[in-house]
Amino acid sequence: MRLLTLLLVLFLCTCVRAQEISRVEPPDWWVGFEQTELQLLVYGKDIGHLRAEINHPGVTLLRTVCPPNANYLFLYLNVAADASPGTFPIVFRDQDREVLRHSYTLQARRDGAAGVQGFNNSDVLYLITPDRFANGDPENDAVASLIEMPKRNFPGGRHGGDIAGMQQRLDYLTDLGITAIWINPVLENDMDQYSYHGYSTTDFYRVDPRFGSNAAYRDFCAAAGAKDVKVIMDMILNHSGSNHWFVVDPPSEDWVNYGGKYVNTNHRRTTVQDVHASEFDRRAFSDGWFVRTMPDLNQRNRLLADYLIQNSIWWIEYAGLAGIRMDTYPYPDKDFMAEWTCAVLREYPNFSIVGEEWSTQPAIVSYWQAGKDNHDGYTSCLPSLMDFPLQDALKLALTEKETWSTGWIKLYETLALDFLYADHDALVVFPDNHDMDRIYTQLGEDPALFRLAMAYTLTTRGTPQLYYGTEILMENSAAPGDHGIIRTDFPGGWAGDKVNGFTGAGLSAEQRAAKDYLRSLLRWRKSAKVIHDGKLMQFAPNNGSYVYFRYTDDEKVMVVLNKGTEGLSLDLSIYEEILPAGATLRDVLTGKEYSTESKTLPLQVNTAYILRVE
Amino acid sequence: MRLLTLLLVLFLCTCVRAQEISRVEPPDWWVGFEQTELQLLVYGKDIGHLRAEINHPGVTLLRTVCPPNANYLFLYLNVAADASPGTFPIVFRDQDREVLRHSYTLQARRDGAAGVQGFNNSDVLYLITPDRFANGDPENDAVASLIEMPKRNFPGGRHGGDIAGMQQRLDYLTDLGITAIWINPVLENDMDQYSYHGYSTTDFYRVDPRFGSNAAYRDFCAAAGAKDVKVIMDMILNHSGSNHWFVVDPPSEDWVNYGGKYVNTNHRRTTVQDVHASEFDRRAFSDGWFVRTMPDLNQRNRLLADYLIQNSIWWIEYAGLAGIRMDTYPYPDKDFMAEWTCAVLREYPNFSIVGEEWSTQPAIVSYWQAGKDNHDGYTSCLPSLMDFPLQDALKLALTEKETWSTGWIKLYETLALDFLYADHDALVVFPDNHDMDRIYTQLGEDPALFRLAMAYTLTTRGTPQLYYGTEILMENSAAPGDHGIIRTDFPGGWAGDKVNGFTGAGLSAEQRAAKDYLRSLLRWRKSAKVIHDGKLMQFAPNNGSYVYFRYTDDEKVMVVLNKGTEGLSLDLSIYEEILPAGATLRDVLTGKEYSTESKTLPLQVNTAYILRVE
Repeated sequence: MRLLTLLLVLFLCTCVRAQEISRVEPPDWWVGFEQTELQLLVYGKDIGHLRAEINHPGVTLLRTVCPPNANYLFLYLNVAADASPGTFPIVFRDQDREVLRHSYTLQARRDGAAGVQGFNNSDVLYLITPDRFANGDPENDAVASLIEMPKRNFPGGRHGGDIAGMQQRLDYLTDLGITAIWINPVLENDMDQYSYHGYSTTDFYRVDPRFGSNAAYRDFCAAAGAKDVKVIMDMILNHSGSNHWFVVDPPSEDWVNYGGKYVNTNHRRTTVQDVHASEFDRRAFSDGWFVRTMPDLNQRNRLLADYLIQNSIWWIEYAGLAGIRMDTYPYPDKDFMAEWTCAVLREYPNFSIVGEEWSTQPAIVSYWQAGKDNHDGYTSCLPSLMDFPLQDALKLALTEKETWSTGWIKLYETLALDFLYADHDALVVFPDNHDMDRIYTQLGEDPALFRLAMAYTLTTRGTPQLYYGTEILMENSAAPGDHGIIRTDFPGGWAGDKVNGFTGAGLSAEQRAAKDYLRSLLRWRKSAKVIHDGKLMQFAPNNGSYVYFRYTDDEKVMVVLNKGTEGLSLDLSIYEEILPAGATLRDVLTGKEYSTESKTLPLQVNTAYILRVE
Repeated sequence: MRLLTLLLVLFLCTCVRAQEISRVEPPDWWVGFEQTELQLLVYGKDIGHLRAEINHPGVTLLRTVCPPNANYLFLYLNVAADASPGTFPIVFRDQDREVLRHSYTLQARRDGAAGVQGFNNSDVLYLITPDRFANGDPENDAVASLIEMPKRNFPGGRHGGDIAGMQQRLDYLTDLGITAIWINPVLENDMDQYSYHGYSTTDFYRVDPRFGSNAAYRDFCAAAGAKDVKVIMDMILNHSGSNHWFVVDPPSEDWVNYGGKYVNTNHRRTTVQDVHASEFDRRAFSDGWFVRTMPDLNQRNRLLADYLIQNSIWWIEYAGLAGIRMDTYPYPDKDFMAEWTCAVLREYPNFSIVGEEWSTQPAIVSYWQAGKDNHDGYTSCLPSLMDFPLQDALKLALTEKETWSTGWIKLYETLALDFLYADHDALVVFPDNHDMDRIYTQLGEDPALFRLAMAYTLTTRGTPQLYYGTEILMENSAAPGDHGIIRTDFPGGWAGDKVNGFTGAGLSAEQRAAKDYLRSLLRWRKSAKVIHDGKLMQFAPNNGSYVYFRYTDDEKVMVVLNKGTEGLSLDLSIYEEILPAGATLRDVLTGKEYSTESKTLPLQVNTAYILRVE
């Protein structure tokens, strides 16, 4: 039976048809990776019936894999460390007859490409939804070859923001104090509707023309890098868009989970770790689809796994990325995710990868981090995760009434679970992101609570991430949970906008105050080594105030977050173990000095104090 | 300086006064423990000035420790394995002059004493607050030598329940299906008020005379044992009552934490594990007092540590206990608690100890269990903990509306964190206890929800524990959180009670139905090996119903807990991996059979189905 199958495959691979080549992916590659094996996906009508031949110094064709769909050939090459960069033909033959040839290029790597530095705790990430930030090039709003046309007055439509717009605003971001940008997905999403968010990839090797081009994206990364701003690419390996060409004409039935049939994921992320979980639920979680238009890719298919790993490396190398934010990290096959993460870091040891695991349980989130000693032996290479538990706790801490078990205690007790993480300092902390209500809305549009949230986010452990427009109090209070409204256009990003958040024109006094506050904080944080590298010591909340210190051997900062009532005075004797007798406390934003002689610190209501201990 | 101190101590230990012996503790001991060293606390006016002498085969006086308070002498003896059981004098001399002598007895251990068997998952624990269960001996309600007199009409007063009452009701309990009793503390609490609860020990070696006597307690344990009912003693090492004689006249200033000064605990149990916790909070948690009348004992004092460890062993050996429920497990010094637990289990390897860690976070609770690989290297010998996280989840599961993130999902996701425990099967699960609202009150006095709670408690993993009166729907709805009302007298336990829960006289139809339901469940559970030893497989809640299986190689039980709406039908195809095609499902309580041919199971609203797979 096995022999018969083999003979059949050989026959299918070699019989004569009218062939063509539509795609070869990756479109090009580099010499000098740790992993010298390279998969080339060759797609074209009946291409599977041909045989490929390569003659180039240092390049060997290791094997050819023919999936059931004859429109595919997967060539596995070895690209030796001493292979010559350059262009060479791949010749496709039917028996001895040359039928097609394709020019393929191996490039030399940029100097230092493997040593690219990711972000660290001295950075602050700014998340941008590119369709909604700034429309730098109105010419590309509509692209005739792509389905969805712009419709700015529809919250779920394309609004025209693009790479050019982001590039024009780099100075705005550096002036604000931002040092890294995480951009929501920019790859082609040629979907009928809701394509603006970018999570339905229809081409893994092409920037959506409505955002710009591959070259524009690469140039943007270079321009950002020149201003010391790191770029973090948003990637999705769990699914593609249903219009993706390899979903429309898949190499094999097992390319997409549930045999290509739509079954929704149950989103029960505990199933991955639950020793009591049923296989039914485990599969439904991992193999179920996000939505009908996002077919769930089967990364257990070796061909697809190799394809996706190479794709990530291609973008890092091509664009000179500093990091990847990986969407829905626990949803794909978990062994594949470990392999992918390790493979990327093997090529770029100092690179940043931050995964999304949207659970409010540190026990669940911590599972995925490198270095965690898991009960089931699962080991990961993932350096960082989005700190969803702390986000949830921050919201509750600020909006709940202060009682024994509500309010600040939520932050205190969530941080107390940091022992669950292999490296809690490597987490990314954030007040909100593109998938949840704007932080200003979460806080009931209270500017004082907003300042407390910002002070916390920028002084706690980890790397902070802010969402675009947070600095000007962007909100979605009229439409809670509405993604299209959460991702409202940044005012001033479009010609003719009445308000301009970039210049400040038309902003309310409150918006200006918020921006000034945040900018002051960000600028101070930039050089506050004690916040980047210091340990954290927290004290149990008391009388509505929450106090923690960041400290190194050389430096200390005391943070007092107060929600307490009028006339509250902090008893400084509580902090004796870390606050030296006779120290002076200097507000890092206002410069105001507080003596500690009286052992008390008078506090204003709903105020954050960031005090350097001197 | 050190020499001077030594001379001073020798002088104090030997100079002449008018001495007497008030107490020697333990009052007696046994030959044949693994730990052959024995501490004798000798208390008496100026006893510290004398020198003890012992001459008995196999008994050696290793050393004498004189604390600052001269009313104490701590004698450390070695009791060799071959020491002769019997009584011998301890002679106290001033120089060469014999001043006092005390007869001390070493007993032979009962055969098999060291092999005592604790409880396991085939048991069901019944928690009794002894003052509130049955007044078997009205003669001991008032004891002239003790401060507090009975006052049955005061919820916080003593009501007269006692050991005799429990002993008279053993048949009631075995008839109900109970196999183990955890009794709230019975040791002397000679406090001014609220002494009924027993958590303010004033004598660690004496059963409170209002409950009975040491002998009565021992006889009760024997009588229970004769009916295959195990007795679990409630112990408190964290604190004593403020009227305890060794608190009133402490051996040293460091006998009680904060130097004997009242500072309340902050109850912030995360501080033990929090890598960011301040020393201030850690100390406040561990050393702070529970309340003003419960001085927090300093177990870091070696003399006190030895005293407490021996006290526990004394009670196990004396009464033939099967287990200990340890109060406030994380509050005492944690290294001492590890030492205590290991020491007890060294003497009784099959003994049960279950600790109270009232946190709803499995990450916090699991820290204390033996076998847990903790981040800080803390290792414990504790076999079991009270499963507070699951209790909280059960209440929420039953009272919350069914949505994506509320209702059954709370149980599902809490159980999903079982990987945090070294041994989740060894936990004790409970719907309520003496410190929280009665489960019937927690469930809004809904009999259907009550049945769901019982079905869950008695079919999930772990050892179940019920609180007395749960079987007759005892409630405290008129006074939520009121301890005195939560611990209401069991009707029928007092002569003249109009309602009698023991006989059933005067119970409402709902109460009788609840008791019948619970008794049926308990009796079935007693021989349901698949519940005792089986694994658990759970399925994500769906349409208001929650399904899990208990299974071994030989047997399977399917549990369906339904809160869904009228007309709901369960799709059985979901359970294919564990439910064989064509199986019959037989209700273990009613015997009713369900075919699975149609792949559906019709469900009644708010109903629990416990179905044997046949």
